[in-house]
Amino acid sequence: MKRTKIVDVLKDTEYGKDVCVKGWVRTHRSSKAVDFIALNDGSTIKNVQVVVDAGTVDDETLKLITTGACIGVTGKLVESPAKGQASEVHCESIEVYGLCGSDYPMQKKGQTFEYMRQYAHLRLRTNTFGAVMRIRHNMAIAIHRYFHEHGFFYFHSPIVTASDCEGAGQMFQVTTKNLYDLKKDEDGKIVYDDDFFGKQTSLTVSGQLEGELGATALGAIYTFGPTFRAENSNTPRHLAEFWMIEPEVAFIDLNDLMDLEEDFIKYCVKWALDNCRDDLEFLNQFVDKTLIQRLEGVLKETFVRLTYTKGVEILQEAVKNGKKFEFPCNWGDDLASEHERYLVEEYFKKPVIMTDYPKDIKAFYMKLNDDDKTVQGTDVLFPQIGEIIGGSVREENFEKLMSEIERREVPMKDMWWYLDTRKYGTCPHGGFGLGFERLILFVTGMQNIRDVIPFPRTPKSADF
Amino acid sequence: MKRTKIVDVLKDTEYGKDVCVKGWVRTHRSSKAVDFIALNDGSTIKNVQVVVDAGTVDDETLKLITTGACIGVTGKLVESPAKGQASEVHCESIEVYGLCGSDYPMQKKGQTFEYMRQYAHLRLRTNTFGAVMRIRHNMAIAIHRYFHEHGFFYFHSPIVTASDCEGAGQMFQVTTKNLYDLKKDEDGKIVYDDDFFGKQTSLTVSGQLEGELGATALGAIYTFGPTFRAENSNTPRHLAEFWMIEPEVAFIDLNDLMDLEEDFIKYCVKWALDNCRDDLEFLNQFVDKTLIQRLEGVLKETFVRLTYTKGVEILQEAVKNGKKFEFPCNWGDDLASEHERYLVEEYFKKPVIMTDYPKDIKAFYMKLNDDDKTVQGTDVLFPQIGEIIGGSVREENFEKLMSEIERREVPMKDMWWYLDTRKYGTCPHGGFGLGFERLILFVTGMQNIRDVIPFPRTPKSADF
Repeated sequence: MKRTKIVDVLKDTEYGKDVCVKGWVRTHRSSKAVDFIALNDGSTIKNVQVVVDAGTVDDETLKLITTGACIGVTGKLVESPAKGQASEVHCESIEVYGLCGSDYPMQKKGQTFEYMRQYAHLRLRTNTFGAVMRIRHNMAIAIHRYFHEHGFFYFHSPIVTASDCEGAGQMFQVTTKNLYDLKKDEDGKIVYDDDFFGKQTSLTVSGQLEGELGATALGAIYTFGPTFRAENSNTPRHLAEFWMIEPEVAFIDLNDLMDLEEDFIKYCVKWALDNCRDDLEFLNQFVDKTLIQRLEGVLKETFVRLTYTKGVEILQEAVKNGKKFEFPCNWGDDLASEHERYLVEEYFKKPVIMTDYPKDIKAFYMKLNDDDKTVQGTDVLFPQIGEIIGGSVREENFEKLMSEIERREVPMKDMWWYLDTRKYGTCPHGGFGLGFERLILFVTGMQNIRDVIPFPRTPKSADF
Repeated sequence: MKRTKIVDVLKDTEYGKDVCVKGWVRTHRSSKAVDFIALNDGSTIKNVQVVVDAGTVDDETLKLITTGACIGVTGKLVESPAKGQASEVHCESIEVYGLCGSDYPMQKKGQTFEYMRQYAHLRLRTNTFGAVMRIRHNMAIAIHRYFHEHGFFYFHSPIVTASDCEGAGQMFQVTTKNLYDLKKDEDGKIVYDDDFFGKQTSLTVSGQLEGELGATALGAIYTFGPTFRAENSNTPRHLAEFWMIEPEVAFIDLNDLMDLEEDFIKYCVKWALDNCRDDLEFLNQFVDKTLIQRLEGVLKETFVRLTYTKGVEILQEAVKNGKKFEFPCNWGDDLASEHERYLVEEYFKKPVIMTDYPKDIKAFYMKLNDDDKTVQGTDVLFPQIGEIIGGSVREENFEKLMSEIERREVPMKDMWWYLDTRKYGTCPHGGFGLGFERLILFVTGMQNIRDVIPFPRTPKSADF
């Protein structure tokens, strides 16, 4: 008999028909007259209740049906007396696919996230991680839909790169060299002509530079791929391997870029509210009581648009009025997290898009303003998580770009292709980067970035 | 004035209204009375014709408008006398964003794909590569839509892995170790406790094993991410870095798996025919005259389902009747490309799903049939490109799986988590892998895999 997913069975009201459900046992309660089995197959956070009248299934089989066991149930669809679901299954027969001993690590309820991280392969079967992973899926779908509907093309920037000027962080080396017999030149310097790619290569820290090549040909592209930082950061907000979304658009100015950022992120949040209700309600109840309210808040508010200079004025005014910050906030300083949070959570109480930063705290490729002091960078700052998006209009003028590259001594060896975009039919363009896991943190209310990706890679940890 | 994308302008019939288009000049023809500029912005393969009456734009500006230059045009939308497009733009003014000198490498028409590969950053602006990249985007969208509509969750398997049993190919090492000062133990063996992850790590060659963890929790997942093989294969069909799609489903049997494979690939091909018509017609005309016919053929045919044993019988029969193959095809041999092509292109003349291979030519994790000789593997063989999908039902029985692992001496160090899926509530499951670029080859008619990914990574080549 054809299996029906539990998400569909729970909505079905064609009572009396035969159904077959398969999944993993969440709980099994027995009494003399009847057994109740809560079954989950990952298609929804909700379990289907299987009612087994005494005598339907032999006692030996019933004993095998412990938490974590995998079974298939055929029976009749009946109306559920329980709230919140239409239907349950009146069991006629059970097939046991896989037993689950009492040493099952996800046996008990109420285990900590730290404990479950050691069993990342099995935590996926729990309510919380099931919810997070289904929301993660939905956010990826929302992202692809948004860009597809808006005429952006998905563009695969390379993962292995020979360029070392991306500048966004420390890099992992990628090699096929025999480390026991490293070829060196007469000065003792390692030679890479016998490495797989014939030169020294690393894992990408950003697809932006290649994304610019795409945008200046296809008009509007976005990347969505893994990105790597070899920083030894053991924090709840850093991963060594994470997924990043980087749209890049030709013929865009700073205002259009801010519109895109705001529209995009609202689309994602709305998608979650529209498509992940059951999972969000679970997380709202057990992980973060203000989650749904905060998501709805983002949709209601028009994001504040604020120059860095104006932001610093507000912060300095606050200090004058007695507000204490740990770090100074003079014009030219990189704002600290406490400053951003003050602006977003206390002063404006809504998301803020900050623009026009001092050039020396931003990357070399950002478009210089006429004041010669600030660049057209734009960060979107969110309550609780701080910077969620960082973007900019790019410097499209060859001479201005070169002069910044020289002033900063950016290593541009092998970067002729990037400069070519400014030589041949250069065009105004811009884009932004969004850390996918930062978005998932915001949308799930989870606190640790290791808990919103299936198998986190962090210093000293690459299990699974 | 707000810019309109050329894809939209060409369809618009509200003649007389003001429009603004921006893009790169494909051609510029001048006569005394009028200039014609063909402008492309990457949103479509089609150019918009800009008509510039004499006197509208000064001669100095017109001289700057060479092939490859980037310009913005404002003017009136007018009906086009040309076939195949509704509208053109009657120019009122032109802004030049970026000049393009005569040293522009994409200046000339008819350059070879080999030549263009050297300029992978600029080839994106040509008709062929624009078409390929838009189709590539559409195939990615089709894949996400298909799985989302069918209740699969997008699952990010890790890129950096510490396991070495995936067995699908040679691996790239990932390290932050200082190669000039490698820590070694007393036997001279390199020690990895000071490496970033505290152990030796590599780039993944397949996300399947982690995908199985996802499927046995969420029910049905798919991966879609970069995958790496460090084989020194300089062929038109191999990349060192490519994108792979790997769905994995709980509670699936061999027949359902074949249904999924066939339905999925037909959905993708249909999506291309429905959504990429202009690009396909271009490729059909200039790259492969049988492209559209071949794509339509896939939709019309029911794929042949054939056991390996039956396939070998057909091949041996053909040999008896005088067919010459380079390689032998005895039961137990891995079929060569010539054998697969004979079955698909000559014997059946339609796609073939081959199943039930001898266990020793397939991976350790495939489900053993009752004959103890064959496994439930399934390869989808396509005309022209051969194997496009490889999949199997997985061995879910712990003892049988362990006995294969031991018989083959598969290195399962650190693989306790994989075996746990068979220990705790094991379930029948299966899945397949599709090389994304192989699909793009099929759907575009391109011959070299380096021409269907923006920036190919191959031996001795990691430019851009």
